[in-house]
Amino acid sequence: MTNGKGILLIISGPSGAGKGTVVSKLKEKSGYSLSISATTRKPRQNEIDGVHYFFKSKEEFEKMIEDKKLLEYADFCGNYYGTPTDFVNKRIENNKTVILEIEIQGALQVKSIYPEAVLIFLTPPSMDELEKRLVGRATETPEKIELRLKRAVEEIDNIDKYDYIVINDSVERAVVDIEHIVNAEKMKAKRNLNLKEILIDYSKSI
Amino acid sequence: MTNGKGILLIISGPSGAGKGTVVSKLKEKSGYSLSISATTRKPRQNEIDGVHYFFKSKEEFEKMIEDKKLLEYADFCGNYYGTPTDFVNKRIENNKTVILEIEIQGALQVKSIYPEAVLIFLTPPSMDELEKRLVGRATETPEKIELRLKRAVEEIDNIDKYDYIVINDSVERAVVDIEHIVNAEKMKAKRNLNLKEILIDYSKSI
Repeated sequence: MTNGKGILLIISGPSGAGKGTVVSKLKEKSGYSLSISATTRKPRQNEIDGVHYFFKSKEEFEKMIEDKKLLEYADFCGNYYGTPTDFVNKRIENNKTVILEIEIQGALQVKSIYPEAVLIFLTPPSMDELEKRLVGRATETPEKIELRLKRAVEEIDNIDKYDYIVINDSVERAVVDIEHIVNAEKMKAKRNLNLKEILIDYSKSI
Repeated sequence: MTNGKGILLIISGPSGAGKGTVVSKLKEKSGYSLSISATTRKPRQNEIDGVHYFFKSKEEFEKMIEDKKLLEYADFCGNYYGTPTDFVNKRIENNKTVILEIEIQGALQVKSIYPEAVLIFLTPPSMDELEKRLVGRATETPEKIELRLKRAVEEIDNIDKYDYIVINDSVERAVVDIEHIVNAEKMKAKRNLNLKEILIDYSKSI
């Protein structure tokens, strides 16, 4: 049906947009898999190398940066986190949709290296709803919530940098919407130019 | 969910690809409607002005060309055929998906005037299948079939000019694929930049 290659799907959006829930539903679908990050953070109990993260030493990680083996990386609280290129490429070659849940900065980094990546901005239906969800979590101080809302406004201001905007009004609907995007992307002409050779048997003289 | 605007959907592809069947199934779906062409051809019995065609005199049609009131037009066997811009625009403003079934030349004409149009190339799964379908019709001479196959090869050679390629292996699947494309297109960020204003109530100071 298509060129047999998967899609690199980047899902981004404000805290409270519901990325975690949507991603966890998506990764249960056949053909979808989650990207595994490399990190210099120490493994927590029960965390398995190659399952939850690829655990690396600082030297190993910096060698990966040097060798351009990361699609993107960032430094959080003194630890590196990044997306190994090889892992993503292998899955895409195997017709998998690889999901990457990262922030806009990282997303744009990936897009510059990997222009075929599909950037989705997942957004709550309104700022009021976002506020409600953040307050509902009851895990954050009012100051932290205000910061998150400010950050959300900045992110929404940058939606033109994304390919698609999915409004997470209902998780089920958002998941279906993303599946439609992936299916549509697989039918993009630019991803299927090999069809010329498949459809036309040039060796035959018609 | 979206900006409330519809999509101009151009469906093109070789004779025998099944455009007619796919389009007739699509236009039964809610939110879809078929574009009505203007023509200088005389109405046949039972053909109603404004339903099957907009029937025009040669002078009226040429005035439409002059006034740039056509998205595309062509001259077939001494009669003009064209797509009235106003009609398409009105339906799109009303959130309709307007289907235009035209040839590549016309499709590219429309895309140049109306870059938001979505160009779909509907193709049979193989040239052998296409030949089978054309022979199966039993309405055409072997010479005519050969000509159509040659034309199909030319068209397939130009698939990079399209946005999407839909393989019509099963009509039901092709219709669903096109519905996914339309849904995905409606979520394109560039079609939804107005969401900034909707999501962020700028008047509120956060």
